[in-house]
Amino acid sequence: MAKVLMKGNEAIAEAAIRSGCRHYFGYPITPQTEVAEYMAKKMPKIGGLCLQAESEIAAINMVLGAAASGVRAMTSSSSPGISLKSEGISYIAGSDVPCLILNVQRGGPGLGGIQPAQSDYNQATKANGHGDLHIFVFAPSSVQEMASLTGKAFALGDKYRMPAMILADGALGQMMEPVDFSLIDDTKAPEKDWAASGHGGKRPRNIINSLYIEPEVLEKLVVERFERYKTVEENETMYEKYMTDDAKIVLVSYGITSRICKTAVTEARKKGIKAGLLRPITLWPYPKKVLGEIADTADRFLVVELNMGQMVDDVKVATSCKKPVSFFGRTGGMLPTPEDVLAQIEKLSEGK
Amino acid sequence: MAKVLMKGNEAIAEAAIRSGCRHYFGYPITPQTEVAEYMAKKMPKIGGLCLQAESEIAAINMVLGAAASGVRAMTSSSSPGISLKSEGISYIAGSDVPCLILNVQRGGPGLGGIQPAQSDYNQATKANGHGDLHIFVFAPSSVQEMASLTGKAFALGDKYRMPAMILADGALGQMMEPVDFSLIDDTKAPEKDWAASGHGGKRPRNIINSLYIEPEVLEKLVVERFERYKTVEENETMYEKYMTDDAKIVLVSYGITSRICKTAVTEARKKGIKAGLLRPITLWPYPKKVLGEIADTADRFLVVELNMGQMVDDVKVATSCKKPVSFFGRTGGMLPTPEDVLAQIEKLSEGK
Amino acid sequence: MAKVLMKGNEAIAEAAIRSGCRHYFGYPITPQTEVAEYMAKKMPKIGGLCLQAESEIAAINMVLGAAASGVRAMTSSSSPGISLKSEGISYIAGSDVPCLILNVQRGGPGLGGIQPAQSDYNQATKANGHGDLHIFVFAPSSVQEMASLTGKAFALGDKYRMPAMILADGALGQMMEPVDFSLIDDTKAPEKDWAASGHGGKRPRNIINSLYIEPEVLEKLVVERFERYKTVEENETMYEKYMTDDAKIVLVSYGITSRICKTAVTEARKKGIKAGLLRPITLWPYPKKVLGEIADTADRFLVVELNMGQMVDDVKVATSCKKPVSFFGRTGGMLPTPEDVLAQIEKLSEGK
Amino acid sequence: MAKVLMKGNEAIAEAAIRSGCRHYFGYPITPQTEVAEYMAKKMPKIGGLCLQAESEIAAINMVLGAAASGVRAMTSSSSPGISLKSEGISYIAGSDVPCLILNVQRGGPGLGGIQPAQSDYNQATKANGHGDLHIFVFAPSSVQEMASLTGKAFALGDKYRMPAMILADGALGQMMEPVDFSLIDDTKAPEKDWAASGHGGKRPRNIINSLYIEPEVLEKLVVERFERYKTVEENETMYEKYMTDDAKIVLVSYGITSRICKTAVTEARKKGIKAGLLRPITLWPYPKKVLGEIADTADRFLVVELNMGQMVDDVKVATSCKKPVSFFGRTGGMLPTPEDVLAQIEKLSEGK
Repeated sequence: MAKVLMKGNEAIAEAAIRSGCRHYFGYPITPQTEVAEYMAKKMPKIGGLCLQAESEIAAINMVLGAAASGVRAMTSSSSPGISLKSEGISYIAGSDVPCLILNVQRGGPGLGGIQPAQSDYNQATKANGHGDLHIFVFAPSSVQEMASLTGKAFALGDKYRMPAMILADGALGQMMEPVDFSLIDDTKAPEKDWAASGHGGKRPRNIINSLYIEPEVLEKLVVERFERYKTVEENETMYEKYMTDDAKIVLVSYGITSRICKTAVTEARKKGIKAGLLRPITLWPYPKKVLGEIADTADRFLVVELNMGQMVDDVKVATSCKKPVSFFGRTGGMLPTPEDVLAQIEKLSEGK
Repeated sequence: MAKVLMKGNEAIAEAAIRSGCRHYFGYPITPQTEVAEYMAKKMPKIGGLCLQAESEIAAINMVLGAAASGVRAMTSSSSPGISLKSEGISYIAGSDVPCLILNVQRGGPGLGGIQPAQSDYNQATKANGHGDLHIFVFAPSSVQEMASLTGKAFALGDKYRMPAMILADGALGQMMEPVDFSLIDDTKAPEKDWAASGHGGKRPRNIINSLYIEPEVLEKLVVERFERYKTVEENETMYEKYMTDDAKIVLVSYGITSRICKTAVTEARKKGIKAGLLRPITLWPYPKKVLGEIADTADRFLVVELNMGQMVDDVKVATSCKKPVSFFGRTGGMLPTPEDVLAQIEKLSEGK
Repeated sequence: MAKVLMKGNEAIAEAAIRSGCRHYFGYPITPQTEVAEYMAKKMPKIGGLCLQAESEIAAINMVLGAAASGVRAMTSSSSPGISLKSEGISYIAGSDVPCLILNVQRGGPGLGGIQPAQSDYNQATKANGHGDLHIFVFAPSSVQEMASLTGKAFALGDKYRMPAMILADGALGQMMEPVDFSLIDDTKAPEKDWAASGHGGKRPRNIINSLYIEPEVLEKLVVERFERYKTVEENETMYEKYMTDDAKIVLVSYGITSRICKTAVTEARKKGIKAGLLRPITLWPYPKKVLGEIADTADRFLVVELNMGQMVDDVKVATSCKKPVSFFGRTGGMLPTPEDVLAQIEKLSEGK
Repeated sequence: MAKVLMKGNEAIAEAAIRSGCRHYFGYPITPQTEVAEYMAKKMPKIGGLCLQAESEIAAINMVLGAAASGVRAMTSSSSPGISLKSEGISYIAGSDVPCLILNVQRGGPGLGGIQPAQSDYNQATKANGHGDLHIFVFAPSSVQEMASLTGKAFALGDKYRMPAMILADGALGQMMEPVDFSLIDDTKAPEKDWAASGHGGKRPRNIINSLYIEPEVLEKLVVERFERYKTVEENETMYEKYMTDDAKIVLVSYGITSRICKTAVTEARKKGIKAGLLRPITLWPYPKKVLGEIADTADRFLVVELNMGQMVDDVKVATSCKKPVSFFGRTGGMLPTPEDVLAQIEKLSEGK
């Protein structure tokens, strides 16, 4: 199939539709409004629903309602809007309902700015709302991956009855690149015998719920859910290795910054520095095992992010603190250049 | 001063009033509704304001508005309600406005249950909303501390222009114990020359804001804020050591579970097991330094929490992964007994 | 075409769809919820939209938005819900946008009860919100008319760019009767060159608005609108005369009570009493002219309503107070029997 | 007491406070925002509460809640905002709770304009929400009356357990005139043994409610309430007669236009035309009796309003259509001059 030139935000919307999503609920916020615009134009033509809710909170709860009936449903927002959805995401995770949430991050905290950021890393990977829970977190680094991971997110979400988040940023959302939609996961939604989709008198009523007054019952459910999370961690972790086999300085970076890092690594190699890059594609589950293996051969790690160093502890834990972990990042919507990153690599290479 | 027998929820309310708080904004949710009840009765009598807002979101934004004018303001809720406040907390942190947020945790995720939990640890310590930010997080383990730390939270919040959270749980909120209110921090609120409190034509207008369209400006503010966070980490970390000096097995536990752990440690000592307890009182800033020191002499750590192990990675990072870290916990509203914890200590002592 | 046995609420919904309505916005309230249920089932199958809004206010404003784009849109509610829509109805009237509002009246004031009433007569005919305005008000007295007048309401609304209300009640809404849908007005919606439906670069932008800061402009618009109202009053008044030609005692009654009155009139005739019935079908425009003519031959009038006498003054004014006007009614959800009405006729006939 | 120069909006606020009102709930809208501003400044100093609600609907329901506990509570708004309060006013009337609602009318319908109008006459006098109900409607024509009638409204509201409305307009609200606050009704609020103010175990629970599922019960309550309305009509009607005794042409006008009419009548008299003015001060109860008496001696009536003739039918009914009733008015925020009105009088005097 021919490639199409598209914005990242549009690629996600198109990929969602191709993955069978017919229910989109949103509320406008820069820099992700193109998602809703695309949905608003396309959905009515294909019998789908694009609804601008009265608030972010309404939107995420509409996703819960729709997805609880078994359909593939999604919402999208940017950082402050995702915070507003925290309660709803926790409800969805606590109800074992699969769905897709897109966060096209902008600079924070608060209203912050409208330039790209990765400063919701901790929120996305550790605290999508209250309670013990995990959700899939995918970090695309190209418009193609914006599309491909959307299909993946729906497929894995359905497989494990878990919500999934695409954690993108304003740069990826606005960037135009060619996309091949034949590459997206075309796994059809499985039969959802748990869904509250009308029993027609043929089976007992399905109930979707996250309230369990008996603590024993609630604990049992949480523990079982964490068993499922373990299976996910073992089987669904995704990452990309770039020149890590003999690398002494290994960069760890995801999303838009991983592209900058790749260029910097290539340049470092040209200068004779053994640099490499480990790019987590799933931020949860986190690629702990491969990082542990790399820690055996690498001398040190350099985390590069658009925030104040939120992923550093994850690399430390994944590598059992075996090798030093440095950090380089920009925040508030600023992007480093490959030269900036290369300078960091050179400094580390010189043992500074 | 004589001690008063009080519920934890009431002790916090009374302590807030004694600390000069005259603006309380809330929305009811079990198990913290006594806070609002207490405020509703007391505030009108002392010229204060207790307002039940139309939603959790309204309440946290009213706190922002009130606190931006320089007064000591607070809100309280329980887990799902705190998720709803995520956006607002990020706005407050991004506006450098001090205030108090009380989370009397209940079992999650989702609606979960109404029994005590500590499963918002990650949210409280790593992701109170989107963006790069930290807030003070205090974990009281007695009704007395519910009161004392409330005073502390207002005082330190004002000192560093940061929001502060009391992270309690349903057990502490409902438990009755004697309180000595003379022990609360009576630091008066400092002069707040940054507050939007009316300039009377005598000084330039103060503006409280979290929106910065220029990314350079936003980055500069965030970086400066993190300098402040560093000072806080160096000066304001609070913890309690219990028999850690010669301990081989060191429990790390906070809040209600630390009390259970203390009993278990005492019992273990009686059996000749060199156990100890490190109780973080501030969860942010986290007592990294003392944990690093203990890691030099202890053989292993046992984290005990009412969740699925959220603090484990923090102990690993604080101890540079020098010694093994085990976990024991209950979730969903279940509480372990001292015997349960003792059994874990014995198992570890036997090298299992 | 064959007749179908249907509830009044369903007949209205089906008639709206057959009249080309594809946009329904509602919020549940007894006794009209079947309208929304019917729409929820049918609309998705025919490419239409049935949306349960977050509130009555949202629903009426969604109607404004949809209808402003030129489509036939409607909402439905019952008494308290219609009050909530007052502002929106005034906005729609002030924007010259046609649409359909259904009020299936229940007993009031306040929450009142859920039994049938006609106690929103004054609100419907004199004050659908603030400002100088009129809207069409149709008072069906059978399930067939529920359907037929729905078609009429859309057709006349479009013709005059005016909102139209079907003023029904809980009895008509719940009652089952045969309906012949071939009898509904099948006037297609006219070309709406005023609609904000996208100009495609081919014509100037259409703006739908009710805000006019210049009082001269606003007055001019209101005066022109009242010219249009005059045309409507002259051409679109609807009523039914039953044995009024030689009647001495003329009942005036609409909706469900007019059926009871008709029976009473028939019974009175059997007893030799020259009774008749004038049934207004449009409550605005009000059938003043015919009432004036009847006043020349009749001796007296008896208004019968499910309220405390709200239409009495309208009959007095229409008849220039030429003949006495009595009132008989029940309120709060009570219905009179034909015998009750007959007793009133007999009393008047005896000059009491 | 000395007179104070004040805006009408401020005079109402001050009068409300002097009448014992300590609970004000509002939401901003031109041209009445000074009321809220005044309350916001004054209330906190006297232990009162001025709360800007999240919406007009919230404000009126807060009034219901406060007034149900027995205190004197009020809200204020302008035309569109009053429409939003329709449901709430009906609830308050249906709960027999006294309170004060101020409508500083602006041009309508819809958003309309911000200049003065009287185009909510019908809504105020005939349909404050759904259901059979009446509320007091006072039409002040000076800043002094803005104050005096506020005291009256609270006193009569309490006496008859009815909500009361001050129906003013943007001109009166903004106009500055001297006020003598010693003239306001200083009737203290009576003991309210029906109020839900806390029973302290000493009496049965009071319940404030407007929901009555049994139609017999609801009808009984409505009928009893209309008995009370009858008493009010007999005893509390207020009006001003100006040169009506021998007048042939009697103007009927209230509020701001009555002042213009008075000047016109004076001028007409100078020209030898026997003109007079009947100024209703209460619009409900309406001064029917006095109008009936005047109709015996006058030749004709001229209604003058800032709307399209909403009061005309009321004059016709009050005078039993004995004499012709003409209308002259401006709308949309326009005001007639005394010369305009005089010209109308002269035309009528010449039999045109």
